[in-house]
Order: sequence, then structure tokens, then C-alpha cells
Amino acid sequence: MNGARALLTTLVDGGVDVCFANPGTSEMHFVAALDDVPAMRGVLCLFEGVATGAADGYGRIAGRPAATLLHLGPGLGNGLANLHNARRARTPLVNIVGDHATYHARFDAPLQSDIASIAGAVSGWYRASSRADDVGADAADAVAAALGPPGCVATLVLPADASWSATATGPRPPAPARRPDLVPPDTVDEVAKALRSGERSALLVGGSAVRAAALQAAGRVAVTTGAALLGETFPANLERGAGLPAVERLAYLAEMAQAQLEGVRHLVLVDAAAPVSFFAYPDKASDLVPPGCTVHTLVRPGEDAALALESLAEAVGAPADAAAPVVPARPARPAGPLTTESLAAAVGAVLPEGAIVVDEGNTSGLFVAGATAGAPRHDWLTLTGGAIGIGLPMATGAAVAAPDRPVLCLQADGSAMYTLQALWTQAREGLNVTTVVLSNRSYAILNMELHRVGADAGGPAARRLLDLTDPELGFCDLARGMGVPARRVETAEDFAAALEAGLHGPGPALIEVPL
Amino acid sequence: MNGARALLTTLVDGGVDVCFANPGTSEMHFVAALDDVPAMRGVLCLFEGVATGAADGYGRIAGRPAATLLHLGPGLGNGLANLHNARRARTPLVNIVGDHATYHARFDAPLQSDIASIAGAVSGWYRASSRADDVGADAADAVAAALGPPGCVATLVLPADASWSATATGPRPPAPARRPDLVPPDTVDEVAKALRSGERSALLVGGSAVRAAALQAAGRVAVTTGAALLGETFPANLERGAGLPAVERLAYLAEMAQAQLEGVRHLVLVDAAAPVSFFAYPDKASDLVPPGCTVHTLVRPGEDAALALESLAEAVGAPADAAAPVVPARPARPAGPLTTESLAAAVGAVLPEGAIVVDEGNTSGLFVAGATAGAPRHDWLTLTGGAIGIGLPMATGAAVAAPDRPVLCLQADGSAMYTLQALWTQAREGLNVTTVVLSNRSYAILNMELHRVGADAGGPAARRLLDLTDPELGFCDLARGMGVPARRVETAEDFAAALEAGLHGPGPALIEVPL
Repeated sequence: MNGARALLTTLVDGGVDVCFANPGTSEMHFVAALDDVPAMRGVLCLFEGVATGAADGYGRIAGRPAATLLHLGPGLGNGLANLHNARRARTPLVNIVGDHATYHARFDAPLQSDIASIAGAVSGWYRASSRADDVGADAADAVAAALGPPGCVATLVLPADASWSATATGPRPPAPARRPDLVPPDTVDEVAKALRSGERSALLVGGSAVRAAALQAAGRVAVTTGAALLGETFPANLERGAGLPAVERLAYLAEMAQAQLEGVRHLVLVDAAAPVSFFAYPDKASDLVPPGCTVHTLVRPGEDAALALESLAEAVGAPADAAAPVVPARPARPAGPLTTESLAAAVGAVLPEGAIVVDEGNTSGLFVAGATAGAPRHDWLTLTGGAIGIGLPMATGAAVAAPDRPVLCLQADGSAMYTLQALWTQAREGLNVTTVVLSNRSYAILNMELHRVGADAGGPAARRLLDLTDPELGFCDLARGMGVPARRVETAEDFAAALEAGLHGPGPALIEVPL
Repeated sequence: MNGARALLTTLVDGGVDVCFANPGTSEMHFVAALDDVPAMRGVLCLFEGVATGAADGYGRIAGRPAATLLHLGPGLGNGLANLHNARRARTPLVNIVGDHATYHARFDAPLQSDIASIAGAVSGWYRASSRADDVGADAADAVAAALGPPGCVATLVLPADASWSATATGPRPPAPARRPDLVPPDTVDEVAKALRSGERSALLVGGSAVRAAALQAAGRVAVTTGAALLGETFPANLERGAGLPAVERLAYLAEMAQAQLEGVRHLVLVDAAAPVSFFAYPDKASDLVPPGCTVHTLVRPGEDAALALESLAEAVGAPADAAAPVVPARPARPAGPLTTESLAAAVGAVLPEGAIVVDEGNTSGLFVAGATAGAPRHDWLTLTGGAIGIGLPMATGAAVAAPDRPVLCLQADGSAMYTLQALWTQAREGLNVTTVVLSNRSYAILNMELHRVGADAGGPAARRLLDLTDPELGFCDLARGMGVPARRVETAEDFAAALEAGLHGPGPALIEVPL
């Protein structure tokens, strides 16, 4: 058995049985070993940013890591933006980077590069296997580190000779799963006391605290104490819809978030960071915690959010049925011109139960969250790290993780162009992803930001850098070029029909929506 | 005047007047300042890897830097692979990375990341401007560092507040241009002595030594002494064609390069590294210098290669007209089925004088170099760092640098998919780039490498990861979706006609060649 086979066997034994791969020569033994370890599913991606974004989407839905397979420093670089998003999402992810043989490094061949430095920016755990006999143990450690909790990007560098050399030690069994840490009772009591103070309060839920069990408990606390139930702006995977408490996400724009937080005297963080402005702006605050507000940390990353919130619910005397669930409600199926509003209504009207919504809709998708608030229960995945170009890859990985659930990808046109190659993988794997390209032919958010940062906007040279006309992108042509059927719709009723067909159809589809 | 305007003015004064940009919010003041400094041309790229690859192509042709504009760590990550290639090519390049405002960093907002670590892997020079008053001087230093010689990637991090704040110091004039260092006469004498020893010798030219003046001198030395005139495998910009000495490039495959070097007792490096295997393989050598061969370094990076070679030519007594230039010769215009051979013949038959050939043809482009050896003089740009996905961006940048020269981009299909977004920029800017997609529907080189590394190849799982059918990529659809006219050709005569039309046409075109 060589190192590559020991690695694959260890991964599979540890529950990692999907690998989103973009291999090169130094990874050929890993590739060859796939036939020896058939439980590992190799999914080819035509660009590394697709592989890493897909692994992120997979991990967010499956709750366990997928592996990547990347080719030395440049391949890691191509995957870095979506690893950044995965790091922010605390997604469990085993990031495998092939490298030159250990003895080859000193010759400074063309692809030699500083993998450790590049990986350091995104990895919660990092190790380079120095020989085949270490690969099994290193892989088991990588899986354990990736799982956490909290989850992280665990980067394992696999030199070619560690991959091809024989190993006597072979694979390693997985480490026992770690349970989340318990929140100390004193912390719960302190938060309960603050919430019963009568002063204006809010829970801010994020991370692992936006799944059903935690949300139900948070809803009981909120209703009983009068605290607002706020959510972080960009959750990794928010469970929502009819039957669950409504979470009011903090707005992206700092001044709107400040309005949401105004007057709050106690802000309780539940696996969420204290709110800060996404970007800095001249003469505007970075720290969005209101003056005079005390910040209480109930749950830190890696702690058991659901249990802590249930303890808190008991501590504040919340009845078991206190949570005010969202009642089922769908907008009427829209007709007439396609606008951001009618588009949102159509999504709300047809979104199936159990759907996975990947939201990289940016400005054009603004109304969809509201229109789907009372839809049947679904998952909502967002751009956690601000590195655009995750929508199509994340939808790809989510669909691999949940083949029986429809995936809706709300995709802004500008962001779509970063990792469009994901469509090919969707076609190859026959994934049920319906991509809605929101085509406003502009980096619309930057037109807004140009004004917000205080820049003297509006010159033709500046505007040309934010404009996506001349030429216009033809997303139907682009999709067809990668084997995904596509259509452009011009009315709300056509969009609703196309969306419904896409979500219920077996394979991928793309709908181009001019806005 | 704010920092952004000081930066742009300093760049333009230093001869940097093109910026390949993919901006975000933190770069909005830079974008706004483009209207104040109209001499700077902003070229929008839809992905950062396009921006960095274009800046590489621009620098290789113009001999002076273009700037990039990237958005924080994730934007830098997306551009990293082609910066790696630029680093290997020693291309002068000013790599501008926008960052959060300095005071915003401590809030760890979603896009906060370790830019210094990521940039370190590719940058010969790195600095973060801490305030607007420093920006002008920092930018002048960046331009000087980028120019070298040798050229390098000079990364300048521009925090948003250094960009938007007023500066009293303003722009800085450029530093005086540095001349290349002179090679010591003793070094020339030592090499001359070795070449006159009667033992088998070879010159290995690379870097700055593959332009006409250096090559003419190298040719005189080779003819006079009987030394072979070898070239590095992947030159940054090789001048070649009728009237110049023929350079025999070292082969990519180590065993073929070993055959080329067999029996050489004196290997003279002229701005080139000692030959090493591109990858490591079980039981094969990494170091390709033959046993018993003495390696002499005539020219190091940053030294004056042409002058050193002219001194060497005099030292070995080479007549002024000793170089044996390649005689003009074109293959007959081919007819019949399209094969890698007939494709190469067609390129050789129609390549115009002064053309720029960007070669990311990989396996399918193997015969083109031979078929164009006697074509009118042209430039040949290759994949210096092994990070695939540079062809389309490099052709884009080369065309911006030389609007009056036709650019031919030989592009393998697998590699094309990494940075396909370059086509949109070609369309927007009306660039005369003719892209030939060599579509063999496979990572063909990996199929070869799978055998070469000794892996037990041929299992269906492994083969599926190297195969680009299921679905097939439709490059004509993909090109049209980005505004580039495209056609698929099936015969050699149709290909030759389409190629001729493309190279003589005003804007971009794409020709899909099934092989």
C-alpha cells in the first residue's frame, strides 16, 4: 500500500467520502488510488475555486468534511478565496494540496512555491506529511481537526513521494468524535439576569446557533423576555421558514444595522461575533455595538449552542411552547414584468419544502428573503467571507451532499463570472441545481459603494469599471457551452414556471433573468 | 489631493499607465481617481486571474510594468497563480492590493485576511502604505522595484484610508532607471576558456538573453566555438523566426532534456537556471546536469546579457557575421484533416511578421514551434511557472501593450477553462487576439503523466478525473457568451483561412479546433 491509498482509506474511514478535485502531475498517485478505494467519490472541477467552494457547500449541508485535491501553491491560490469563505463559515473541510516530492523542493522547479504561507491565511490546521508512513496518521488528524467543533479548514500537504512510496503503517482509524463544549452554568445565569433586567435586549445568533433546535430555544427566550431575535448578516446555513422562529438578520449596510441595534442595552452573542461594519467608510463607525450596550457572550464557537439556549430558556422561565413560529405564507404567484420584487414573489410562491437556497444574489436578490420567510422549511446559505464567486460552487457541493433536495442558486451576474466553471460539474454529475442569474449588467453594489465611501463618483472612467455592458454577457450561451440547459425569461409568470420546472427537474438548469 | 490620486499620478509619471482591475468597495477611491488622472487606462477584468495574467503579458511585451488592482486577500488569492507565473518570468509588475482602512483591521470584518502572507509567496518587493502621505513615495519605490532589473512582482497594499485621506506630500517623481549590472571581465574570460577547450559545450539562454541582440551574439559564439545554443524550456518572451539564430529549447520531459544535454562538459548559463526536471518521478533524476559537466554562470538575472554575450563573442574571436541565422521558410498551406501536424503547418504558413504568439497549447501545440521556426520574426511567450490558465489573460495583456501587432493565442482546452473570462475583456477593448482552442477534450498531459509517475493507471475512476467529455465543452458558445465571435473548423484549409482572417481582423476571434 502506498501513501495515497493510506490517505484515501483513512479519509473514507473517517467519513470523508467525496473529493472535489482539480489534480496535476504531483497528484497522479492520489488519482490512481481512487480505483483502489471505490468508496471515495472523485468529483472533477475545472477550476480550483470551484473545488473549494463545492467543498464548503458540501460541508455546510452534510455537517462533515469533503476533501479537496489541489495542485501545489498555484492551485491552492486559485482555491483560496472560497477557502476564505469556508474559514469564515467554520465549515469542516479537508484541504489536500499536492506538492513536489520532498527531495525535489531544493531544485526550485517552476511550480515550487511557498505553500505554507499561502495556506496559513485560511487554515485552522496545517501539516505537511513528510513520508508515506505518516500519511495515515496525518490524515486522521486532519479529519479530526476539520470536524472540530468548531469546524475549520484543515490543510494537509501531500508531497508526491509521500503519496507514491510504500507504507507499512497504512491507514489510521478515525479519532473519536468530539462533542461540543458545554457552556458554564454561570454564563447562562448571567445572561438570564441581563435579559430579565427589563432593559432593551437582543440575542444575536450565528454559527451553529441558526439550526432548528437552537432557534426554537432562542425563540422561547425572545418571546418570554421581549428580547429581539437577531441573526448575523451572513450565516453559513440558516434554517428558516414556516414553523421556525423568525430571525431578523442584521443588515449589510452599517447604518441600517445600527438602526436595528439602536437602544439595545444587552446584546447576547450566541456563536456570533459582535457586529462590525463590513467595510470602513470615512467618518462612519466600524464598531456597531451601540453606546452603553453591554455585550454578553453566551456561546463561543465550538460550544453547544442548542443546549445553552435551552438552559437559558429554562432560566428565564420560558414555557416549552413559547416560541412564536412563522406561520405558513406564500406570496401570490406573480404576473407581469420581471422586477426584483416580482422575482422574489415567484421564488416565495414555488420554493419546495426542504430546498437549499444558495444566496449570492447580492443587490438584485434583496427581496427574496422576505418573500420566502413563510415558505416551507428550507436552508439558506450565504457568502460568509465576502469573497464573491461562491454561489455556483457552493450550490454544486450542496447538491452532492443532498441529492434528494432541490438546490436554488440565486446568483448575481458579476459574481457568477468568478467561478462559472461550476456549471460543467453540475452537468457532469447530473445535480439538481437551478441557477437563477440576476442579470443587472453591473457591479451594482459597487455603484452604491462608490457613493457610500464618499468618492466623487460618476466620472466615465470610474463608471466603466463597474459596468458589465459592452459587451453584455450571454449566460444562456455560457451555460450551454458547459452542458447546462438554459433559458432567458422576460416575464414574472415565465420565470415562475421556469423556476418550478428547474427545481422539480432531475438535472441542472439555468434561468437568465434580465433586471 | 487624496492618496489614490497621488498613487495614480506617481504611477503614470513612472511610466505605468495601464491598470488591469477587478475592484471592490475598498478600492472605490482608486476607481474614482481614474477620472482625475486620465493618462491611466483602467481595463476591467471579470476575474483577478485575468488581471494578473494580463499584467504579466503586458509587462513581457512592453518591458515596463502594468498595474493590477485587486480586492483584499481573496482577490489577491484569485490572482496568485498568474502572479506566480509572472514571478518566474521576472516580469515587471506593480501589484496593487486594496485593503480595509488601517483602523478597521482590528474588527476582523469578514474580508479581513493575512495579505502579507499570501503576497509573500509571489512578491519580490512588498509594502503596505500606512497613510496617504506615504503613498506617493511607496508607489515610486514599487515601480522602481518592479522594473529592477531583474523585473519582479512589486506588491503595494493600499488601505482604504490611505487612499481616501488627503495628502500634503502628493505624488513622487520616478526613481532614475537602473541599468543592468555588467558581467565582470573575468567571468567572460573563464567562459571563453571553457568554450575553447574543445570539449563539448552548450550555452543555455533564458530570461533577458532570448531577445534579438543577445541571441545574435550567442549565435556568433555558438558557431565559432561549436557550442550548442540551447534555450530554457519555458522562456518569458523568446524572439525567433527568420534572420535570428535558432535556439533549441530544452524539452519539458526530463528524459528528452537529458538526451539534449548528453555528453556536455561545459554548460554556460546565460540568465537561465541549471536544468532540473519539471516534476519529480520515482527513480528518475531531478537534476538534469550531466555527470562530469561543469556549470558556468555567465549572466545572472539583472546583469546585461547582450553585452556579456558580445564580450564573449569577441573573446572567442567570433566574426561579426558568424551567427547562422534561420533562413525564411514556411510550410505549405495544408489541406485535409485537422491534426496536430496540419494545424501546426497552417500556423507556420500564415503567421504574420511581428506577431505575438502566446503558447499555452500544451500537448496539442507540440508541433507549432517547429512549423514556425522559419516564419517572419515574432515573439513567443510561454507558461513560465507551470500554473495553467495564463494563455487567454497573457494574450489580452500583450494585445493591450502592442495594439498594432496581431496576437495568436494557442490555448489547450483544459487550461482555457481556468481564466476564460479574459475573452470578455478582449471583446470590450477590441483587442486583436485570435484564440485557437486546441480541443482534445482531455487533460492529455495528465494521462501521459499518470503513466510517467509510475501510477497504476487506467482505472475508470482515475480516467474520469482526466477526461473532459461528458459533457463536452462548447467553446463557440462560451466565446459568444462573452461577446467574442467564434467558429469551429473541421479541416486544415478552413483552419488556415479562419486563422488568417482572425489575425488580420481588428478585434478578437476564437477558433475551436477539435483534435
